[in-house]
Amino acid sequence: MLKRTHKCGEFRAENIGQEVVVCGWVNSYRDHGNLVFVDLRDISGLVQVVFNPDENPDIHETARHLRSEWVIAVKGKVRARGEGLENPRLATGQIEIITGELEVMARAKTPPFEIDGADQVGEDTRLKYRYVDLRRPVMQQKMIVRHKIAKLVRDYLDSRDFLEIETPMLGKSTPEGARDYLVPSRLYQGSFYALPQSPQLFKQILMVSGMDRYFQIVRCFRDEDPRADRQAEFTQIDIEMSFVDSDIVITTMEEMIAGIWKEIAGYDVQLPIRRMSYRECMDSYGIDRPDLRFDMKLHDISDIAGECEFKVFNSVVANGNVVKGLCAPGAGSYSRSDIEKGLTGFVGDYGARGLAWFKVSAAEGGDALELKSNIAKFFTADQQQEIIRRFDAKDGDLLLFIADSENVANKALAPLRVKLGRDLKLYDEKSLAFVWVVDFPLFEWNEESGRFDSLHHPFTAPVEEDLSKLDTDPGNIISQAYDLVVNGSEVGGGSVRIHNMQTQQKVFDILNISRDQAEDRFGFFLKALEYGAPPHGGIAFGLDRLTMILTETDNIRDVIAFPKTQRGQCLLTDAPSSVDQKQLDELNIRTQKHLHAIEEEA
Amino acid sequence: MLKRTHKCGEFRAENIGQEVVVCGWVNSYRDHGNLVFVDLRDISGLVQVVFNPDENPDIHETARHLRSEWVIAVKGKVRARGEGLENPRLATGQIEIITGELEVMARAKTPPFEIDGADQVGEDTRLKYRYVDLRRPVMQQKMIVRHKIAKLVRDYLDSRDFLEIETPMLGKSTPEGARDYLVPSRLYQGSFYALPQSPQLFKQILMVSGMDRYFQIVRCFRDEDPRADRQAEFTQIDIEMSFVDSDIVITTMEEMIAGIWKEIAGYDVQLPIRRMSYRECMDSYGIDRPDLRFDMKLHDISDIAGECEFKVFNSVVANGNVVKGLCAPGAGSYSRSDIEKGLTGFVGDYGARGLAWFKVSAAEGGDALELKSNIAKFFTADQQQEIIRRFDAKDGDLLLFIADSENVANKALAPLRVKLGRDLKLYDEKSLAFVWVVDFPLFEWNEESGRFDSLHHPFTAPVEEDLSKLDTDPGNIISQAYDLVVNGSEVGGGSVRIHNMQTQQKVFDILNISRDQAEDRFGFFLKALEYGAPPHGGIAFGLDRLTMILTETDNIRDVIAFPKTQRGQCLLTDAPSSVDQKQLDELNIRTQKHLHAIEEEA
Repeated sequence: MLKRTHKCGEFRAENIGQEVVVCGWVNSYRDHGNLVFVDLRDISGLVQVVFNPDENPDIHETARHLRSEWVIAVKGKVRARGEGLENPRLATGQIEIITGELEVMARAKTPPFEIDGADQVGEDTRLKYRYVDLRRPVMQQKMIVRHKIAKLVRDYLDSRDFLEIETPMLGKSTPEGARDYLVPSRLYQGSFYALPQSPQLFKQILMVSGMDRYFQIVRCFRDEDPRADRQAEFTQIDIEMSFVDSDIVITTMEEMIAGIWKEIAGYDVQLPIRRMSYRECMDSYGIDRPDLRFDMKLHDISDIAGECEFKVFNSVVANGNVVKGLCAPGAGSYSRSDIEKGLTGFVGDYGARGLAWFKVSAAEGGDALELKSNIAKFFTADQQQEIIRRFDAKDGDLLLFIADSENVANKALAPLRVKLGRDLKLYDEKSLAFVWVVDFPLFEWNEESGRFDSLHHPFTAPVEEDLSKLDTDPGNIISQAYDLVVNGSEVGGGSVRIHNMQTQQKVFDILNISRDQAEDRFGFFLKALEYGAPPHGGIAFGLDRLTMILTETDNIRDVIAFPKTQRGQCLLTDAPSSVDQKQLDELNIRTQKHLHAIEEEA
Repeated sequence: MLKRTHKCGEFRAENIGQEVVVCGWVNSYRDHGNLVFVDLRDISGLVQVVFNPDENPDIHETARHLRSEWVIAVKGKVRARGEGLENPRLATGQIEIITGELEVMARAKTPPFEIDGADQVGEDTRLKYRYVDLRRPVMQQKMIVRHKIAKLVRDYLDSRDFLEIETPMLGKSTPEGARDYLVPSRLYQGSFYALPQSPQLFKQILMVSGMDRYFQIVRCFRDEDPRADRQAEFTQIDIEMSFVDSDIVITTMEEMIAGIWKEIAGYDVQLPIRRMSYRECMDSYGIDRPDLRFDMKLHDISDIAGECEFKVFNSVVANGNVVKGLCAPGAGSYSRSDIEKGLTGFVGDYGARGLAWFKVSAAEGGDALELKSNIAKFFTADQQQEIIRRFDAKDGDLLLFIADSENVANKALAPLRVKLGRDLKLYDEKSLAFVWVVDFPLFEWNEESGRFDSLHHPFTAPVEEDLSKLDTDPGNIISQAYDLVVNGSEVGGGSVRIHNMQTQQKVFDILNISRDQAEDRFGFFLKALEYGAPPHGGIAFGLDRLTMILTETDNIRDVIAFPKTQRGQCLLTDAPSSVDQKQLDELNIRTQKHLHAIEEEA
């Protein structure tokens, strides 16, 4: 076997004259009769290899039979390309290798799609032939960035005395939120392990163990119903620290995040990253993960709407609901049909029953602004001016309003705002907006179940000064939780945790988790809290999501080497699949198919 | 909350005079009436904290109520200990902290065992209260070493252009060797995922994908029957490289290994690490993972035994079996009962039906050596001298022989050799002996099944020159596999892989894996090999085992934060456990318990 001396993409003018061996895939092939040219590809790039019949007739003959994606090794001499034959689009474009030896390492069938043309084939084909898809430089680049992020995280955390400690994959089922993936035990038949949804309890127990600072880049599992942006297994950068408050966690983490963006994107994240309260997020952006690349704040005009002559508005306000809206700059040029089909329909998908609108325009013969729409007549001039003032609206803007419960209004206005920001190109695609969302409520009221849910998870601590409200006013407790949001995506979230058993027990009570249930699911953890638990807090970042943002991709499957489809299938290996009866017998479990058989016999 | 400024173990004389805040656990407590002394502990070590009623009566009163393992924060001033009161056994023994403020962060129940005394409690108690056990400095040290090994591996591999790429945990069941852990799919009922026994096929597919150099520190799973030194889930340093031969893999890896030992143990591994053929290992040590900390080679004396007068020996040889043994230096002082009870019994546990022995001693009145034993009379003086010469035996040595099949002799002599090496203190406990075992046979004949098994796994490549034997003489093919052995433990193993479909198919044929089975289990992989697979090879190291050697522990559970018992139970969380009926209903599976109920109804 020829032994590689260089990678394909490494060659520069200074290599001219060297005797080298390169290996790789035949990326393209040109037979110019007397000369054969091959662009040889490996992970580092391309290099042009030349086969010349005058210098080496045998090799030239073999070279003429090469095909796309064959794997070859070439020994030869680096030489400058002829005058005017340089390829400025190629890093190695100044040179070529004139071949002395050729070794065909592997032939290849015609690939199911061109390495350069995978965007034109369906994703299913790419997933099925992932080993061809991953040869595309754009995919390899994503894997490289993912590797680099993980490396930077580990380097930073190691330098700050965090220890990477592995927690079990085969754990105990503590159903909470999402469904667990279960693993039947063979030795304890009828018992099951569960794959972790996160190592939350283990990392807290590590703090109780005195490990001080923990992290782990760890696979987590949620058996959720299919969603485009979720995977059954995903990777979390999981972090926990002892003897900290939320401020220490936030400042330690934003330094790490800034380091990642600096190294990978050459981007300077402004530190400290701004912090915004949950309340401000909901009021101004309708959502707890605001996209701050552009302004366009939401405003509430319930006060005006309640006094206007428009019945729909004032009855909504009279019923305790709100009229809330936004100002789309320059969208006054939208036609009625643009608005009704494009926007009313859009917010309808999010549950809003209507969308009121006004165009802002200069009044005839003057600088003053006025509102125009079929409902403008229900508003006095003063009311109109007050609306214009509140949004700081300009001539040519479009004001859009939803009259409904605050919850429905926010749920529809938040995506409408994001859509308009994108449609109206209100921000540079390359821009980044980081924000820590803080001061979340500890609980949120669940209308359906008639009880409180945790806004984060049941281990989140209340702020010190709200501790007494656990007994009196749980709905108004502020938590010590924090989420990091980038361009409207939550990339990480965490909290300071409860570190004593009594407080933890009170929270379980408020969440309506009975003492028996708590003991059954979390008993070991409650017990640990009684043996000397330090104050502690942490955070978890989604590695998949971080990689998506840093590689500017919207498809989570593109940042995972071997992803599953939305329905959890691996198209490469065909997992999940049926298994041998013997395997099920050893576990002593039966699937529905066998049950049918048994029942039919009976 | 008081904000920590230092860790407990960090203080030195240069900190004297500083105002500091430390946090930690009350390790010990002495109330000297007027003064209270606390040794405060965190992961970095201990520091003495003093509470003085003259300076601060309120705090002193609180301090008198502190108990072991309470978590406190202390603000105070660092001062030199009084003349003669320094504690040289403590890194911080020159100083103490005189307290100005005290914050009790958490009280603690009396721990189930003393942090300093865990060696006296059963392991089950340690595992159940793992959060107390992990507070022991010796356990924290093991976690720190484990973290450091992983960090060194990543730093080295990253510097050598390896990419860490994650492979799926929810994979396809390809039963081979050990049992798979299965995970029922909810969306595809009756189908299962399997947890990976190793990412073997994925890493090879990454090479086919052009990723060039891959690694991953990855959890693997084997549902094996209980064994003391195995865990259901274990961690592998998994590595693969393209365009390499075995020599490149070996030299790249031994540099990494040497770096680890240098950094963690300050030990210089001599490079290159010696390589020994499988044949030499079996002949001279009876095993393919020889402990080379001491010599004591096995020798075959079948030629002499076949000609001696001792019937047992010559009939064994006549039947084509062997007489093989070793020389235990200085063990001539063993009594007959030492030998018969201590050694014959020992080899009996490994299947040997007897153990012949000779003591080597100086003949009366001369320098010449002779053999003494109840069977010595069956050997001529020349035969005795030849035996003495072959083992280079000395006066006072003990020669021990097994007469049986080569396989039985090796299986008993190898552990006997290790036992004697330890008992006779033939090596320094701190010494290390590294060896690469190479030139393994590709297949071994399985008497029971009457067919060939892979000695490593079915993806291992034969050496080039033996390729033709696939059709004619599979039993004599040498593979391109290599194992790294340290002190008789295999810490890593790997091979150059087969990279073409035809050879892979031939190997499956020899292993009696039918075309249908191969297609069903490995079809996706065979297909990948047809689309341009580069020559590639790799290795996997056991992180658990590396950590055990580097922390000098024999207990695999001591190097894992949350290990399971031999029978796969987590005593901390009680996994595996029963789950809600609803969870099983969603998966549509039934356990034996339900089946009984259904059958009884019928």
